[in-house]
Amino acid sequence: MYSFKDDYSETGHEKILSDLLKISRTQFDGYGLDSISEDAKNFIRQRFALDKNDADIHFISGGTQTNKILTHCALSSIEAVIAADTGHICVHETGAVESNGNKICVIPNKDGKLIPSDIEKIYYAHTDEHMVKPKLVYISQATEIGTVYKKQELENLYKTCKKLNLYLFIDGARLGAALASNGMDIKPQDMANLCDAFYIGGTKNGSPLGEALCIINKKLNENFRYYLKQDGALLAKGALIGSCFKTLFTDDLFFDLAKHSTAAAQKMKKALVEKGYRMYSDSPVNMIFPVLPNEIIARLQKDYKFHVWEKVDDSHSVIRLVCSWATSDEEIDKFIAAIF
Amino acid sequence: MYSFKDDYSETGHEKILSDLLKISRTQFDGYGLDSISEDAKNFIRQRFALDKNDADIHFISGGTQTNKILTHCALSSIEAVIAADTGHICVHETGAVESNGNKICVIPNKDGKLIPSDIEKIYYAHTDEHMVKPKLVYISQATEIGTVYKKQELENLYKTCKKLNLYLFIDGARLGAALASNGMDIKPQDMANLCDAFYIGGTKNGSPLGEALCIINKKLNENFRYYLKQDGALLAKGALIGSCFKTLFTDDLFFDLAKHSTAAAQKMKKALVEKGYRMYSDSPVNMIFPVLPNEIIARLQKDYKFHVWEKVDDSHSVIRLVCSWATSDEEIDKFIAAIF
Amino acid sequence: MYSFKDDYSETGHEKILSDLLKISRTQFDGYGLDSISEDAKNFIRQRFALDKNDADIHFISGGTQTNKILTHCALSSIEAVIAADTGHICVHETGAVESNGNKICVIPNKDGKLIPSDIEKIYYAHTDEHMVKPKLVYISQATEIGTVYKKQELENLYKTCKKLNLYLFIDGARLGAALASNGMDIKPQDMANLCDAFYIGGTKNGSPLGEALCIINKKLNENFRYYLKQDGALLAKGALIGSCFKTLFTDDLFFDLAKHSTAAAQKMKKALVEKGYRMYSDSPVNMIFPVLPNEIIARLQKDYKFHVWEKVDDSHSVIRLVCSWATSDEEIDKFIAAIF
Amino acid sequence: MYSFKDDYSETGHEKILSDLLKISRTQFDGYGLDSISEDAKNFIRQRFALDKNDADIHFISGGTQTNKILTHCALSSIEAVIAADTGHICVHETGAVESNGNKICVIPNKDGKLIPSDIEKIYYAHTDEHMVKPKLVYISQATEIGTVYKKQELENLYKTCKKLNLYLFIDGARLGAALASNGMDIKPQDMANLCDAFYIGGTKNGSPLGEALCIINKKLNENFRYYLKQDGALLAKGALIGSCFKTLFTDDLFFDLAKHSTAAAQKMKKALVEKGYRMYSDSPVNMIFPVLPNEIIARLQKDYKFHVWEKVDDSHSVIRLVCSWATSDEEIDKFIAAIF
Repeated sequence: MYSFKDDYSETGHEKILSDLLKISRTQFDGYGLDSISEDAKNFIRQRFALDKNDADIHFISGGTQTNKILTHCALSSIEAVIAADTGHICVHETGAVESNGNKICVIPNKDGKLIPSDIEKIYYAHTDEHMVKPKLVYISQATEIGTVYKKQELENLYKTCKKLNLYLFIDGARLGAALASNGMDIKPQDMANLCDAFYIGGTKNGSPLGEALCIINKKLNENFRYYLKQDGALLAKGALIGSCFKTLFTDDLFFDLAKHSTAAAQKMKKALVEKGYRMYSDSPVNMIFPVLPNEIIARLQKDYKFHVWEKVDDSHSVIRLVCSWATSDEEIDKFIAAIF
Repeated sequence: MYSFKDDYSETGHEKILSDLLKISRTQFDGYGLDSISEDAKNFIRQRFALDKNDADIHFISGGTQTNKILTHCALSSIEAVIAADTGHICVHETGAVESNGNKICVIPNKDGKLIPSDIEKIYYAHTDEHMVKPKLVYISQATEIGTVYKKQELENLYKTCKKLNLYLFIDGARLGAALASNGMDIKPQDMANLCDAFYIGGTKNGSPLGEALCIINKKLNENFRYYLKQDGALLAKGALIGSCFKTLFTDDLFFDLAKHSTAAAQKMKKALVEKGYRMYSDSPVNMIFPVLPNEIIARLQKDYKFHVWEKVDDSHSVIRLVCSWATSDEEIDKFIAAIF
Repeated sequence: MYSFKDDYSETGHEKILSDLLKISRTQFDGYGLDSISEDAKNFIRQRFALDKNDADIHFISGGTQTNKILTHCALSSIEAVIAADTGHICVHETGAVESNGNKICVIPNKDGKLIPSDIEKIYYAHTDEHMVKPKLVYISQATEIGTVYKKQELENLYKTCKKLNLYLFIDGARLGAALASNGMDIKPQDMANLCDAFYIGGTKNGSPLGEALCIINKKLNENFRYYLKQDGALLAKGALIGSCFKTLFTDDLFFDLAKHSTAAAQKMKKALVEKGYRMYSDSPVNMIFPVLPNEIIARLQKDYKFHVWEKVDDSHSVIRLVCSWATSDEEIDKFIAAIF
Repeated sequence: MYSFKDDYSETGHEKILSDLLKISRTQFDGYGLDSISEDAKNFIRQRFALDKNDADIHFISGGTQTNKILTHCALSSIEAVIAADTGHICVHETGAVESNGNKICVIPNKDGKLIPSDIEKIYYAHTDEHMVKPKLVYISQATEIGTVYKKQELENLYKTCKKLNLYLFIDGARLGAALASNGMDIKPQDMANLCDAFYIGGTKNGSPLGEALCIINKKLNENFRYYLKQDGALLAKGALIGSCFKTLFTDDLFFDLAKHSTAAAQKMKKALVEKGYRMYSDSPVNMIFPVLPNEIIARLQKDYKFHVWEKVDDSHSVIRLVCSWATSDEEIDKFIAAIF
């Protein structure tokens, strides 16, 4: 069985793991205050042009943890998150945000995305102390259905957020793939101007674990390390994730891996479209959502793992196919052949 | 600068890291439901004789996270933990348990430990709905000051807990060192009979990350994976920690590393005692607490990192010296020489 | 300015307040363990036929507090509430349920109500530990838009809940008005068979404060008084609310007041319908939602307080008119005259 | 059985209850935004000289609720309360503060009180992100054992708090009795200069319910009404507590009642001391703690309710005797006679 189920099936890139082996017995200071984490942060600061903002970076094990802690630190109990109904925090994090005590105000998504007028509408609907106070807008780049925000879209969203005194936070579990996608007009060095905080997903782009949370707006960074500790996210051996990111941002490995996984998925997409299958969403990243006849799906399931996303009609369903940094051309070709 | 500050300075044992490198591109199911984690659990179940209890095991990144999630799952909001004032959860976890909504009922420690009569006293003092309901007793093996519970002590504690319908949970961040300590009469296979849950510390015994939480009492395991996810601890690449523990429990590496670190610290202790220095606590594990003249401490600090634990009098302080799986004989000899 | 804004504008019925004056200096046991609260509970048990179920009753100051504490006690952190998007807990309680740590799974309402198939759908969509566990269904009788559940509807809902192992909880802030409404086929003595818990609203039916929470299902009552205390709801002078309910359930005052307020609102409704105005919802209780031309609304606002509920089109809006136990015939006639 | 168990046994003063009866059918705006609450606030502002500070006042049902909400609003999850081990929030509020997610750093009391050097010690012991951040000091005036802070003591505490950037909050459940106590050098108009927030206890001084929380420091008032609502404390009929306080602060009824209860208890104390009994604490307020032979206690228990506070030796115990605004001279004389 080969898996197109997700982009975190393979443990991690060889360079990352062999760099870890090299520092097996090196002594580091604990809790992320080590020199290798500092190196990694500097590499990221440079590549994402974060220096001018004096942004802070925190390495965190996974995405749910990052979303949970950022919102925990940013919000008081009576403040709320605004998110699309398809947002990962709304659906697949077992109420992590609510377990902090915070409500999520949910907006029906438009192609997996939020638009300024919906944010305004929900903001102005919350008028007094009988309702929570919306305070932070959560979006994903790329979204759960693989769509991406273009530069103008993010600029408009952020402008609306600033007008309404809302924070804008970007879940970048698949930021690499989004930045590597065809037609994307956002560059790494633009990110700091487009939001108050974002995270760079490592887990879904070749690292055995870890996300790099970049906090631009100082208000979101207040006492942040206290929240890391309280929420159980301050790894004793912080150098572990630091080293992973140092390798990822050496010689642009991070972007090379993202280009690889995105190209792999888009190759599959092209083949499917040419054969006349339609896509559930317009996804330019490393996951695609073809609509297939159920009998083909059943046949594929004998040799492949993937998610059946949702039923379309009695004879068709959407499936999700995800390529990773480790997906080989050979496997893609075999899969394409298997469909027909 | 050489560090005796803690047992988590070095990244991880070579065998563990090279085993990770071997599975770089192997595909695994996500979230800890992979075959390598299953192997690791079976190795642990066998070595700790957990099979007869059908105990469940969960791999979690770190100790604070483990303590937080176990108590989160075990307790309702009106139930409380009983712990010694020196307990890690009371002092050095930034209110992680309280952030779940739970109170900790604190008992002054006796050599870092709890005794049955203190538990009874605090239990019976909580009489009605104006006070929380004590429900879980938290202890550490070894304790924060390196002391250990002998078998009879744990049996007595557990008997008291069962009588009062309290859970007994053992924080085993340094369980390896405790089991390896001179005079210890508890064997791995005894643990399941001595408590409702315990964890086997990996981070402080050679693993780059990870603790193995062993839940004997089924009540503590209800919906546990939901809590793992909600609290941000369910790593997408669960095979990462699984592999670390599989290696640790292959050929008894775990116990070999614990013996090494414990022997190293005890060698230092012996040398210090022979030179007439007294110890703050009777610690048989991989950390010791000598009382030294301040001028010697100041001199050592030029070449060594360690914690100054507390002031004794105007001219003496207690320091904490911790040895790890990676501490070499040579470094110990150099340090002993440096003292005198 | 006369107010039709709500049913809690007037302080409380004279009988209730004069009964309080009579016990000014009588000594009672604290925290609701007094004889007068016991009397009140017995009166309610008898009138609602709760005896056979050995139901427990708790007097709580207000509705949000009741909803918060019931869900706090009923649910663990990973369990969730199912509610209609119009539910009071979703909209007008400032995230009280979420501040307990619990998510609300929201369903688009059907005339303010939930139906079994929607509950099934949301229940079965929550499949594993990446999502919360729905556990309690929250409905209101009457709903926020004045509609009511008939007996068969509640029976169907409760059957579905029991099948799926979900609790059914009825917010009865306006239970009196619902039971008094024309065509209602549910009797007080039916309530215990239709849900796991419900509350009888005092505040909106003549009491200066207080709701009577009736817990049928023993599981929801476990340690309940601990939650009352922890959440700040255990009044030292519990006899205060006890006395209010004792008076309300003496000589059926509670039902007389509910009939009065319902009849008052329905009289207004009849007059409006006869004049050709349509209603936003089919409400048989003490609040009605006429659709009126904006210029009439503007004129009425000079002499009357009421909520403008929502915009219908550029020239019409829905308003909410609420009658209370204290609304006089004279005021209704004056208002009807004022419309035309 | 006559009760000296507490000062909240009797429902409420006749003037308060008859004033409520007078407004039975008067319409008020909801949620405390009514004219009668505004009147009450003005009376309090004037009597406590709060005007110059533009302090805000909130009426809340009870003491635990007030403590819970004030700390909920004041503190983020990683901030902590400092309190004496005897503090009501530590012992008798079922973990209400912890259920907000906040830790309480406990200090052994000195006669029920805190002193500046203890606050400094605990403050400076919290050094980094591995520990919570102490942020609010909680004290009671009078304390749980009836002792009181004199002006100089409060000035010193508040100076320390300001130096360390800590809030000082005074639980005034028995503030009336403290201000009425013999030798007290603090006047109502001093309170605003001695702390950041305090509450004036109504429940224990003649009101059927209600505490008046006075917030001097604006930072503690931010979004406060949102917390009132979220925590279930925003009574729909806010005029109810407003009216109670309006009556209490008309013609100084509040202070007259406090003088009465205090004088009653001190009369008992004088009689006991003259007979040679010693007091457990030096309490000048409406509750006293005599040490009595167990056989006398047993005899008294046949006719009187009171708390047995703690065992002194095998033949003696401390009891707590509390007088209220309603305790008559006759009852005191009878009790004194009963002792001998």
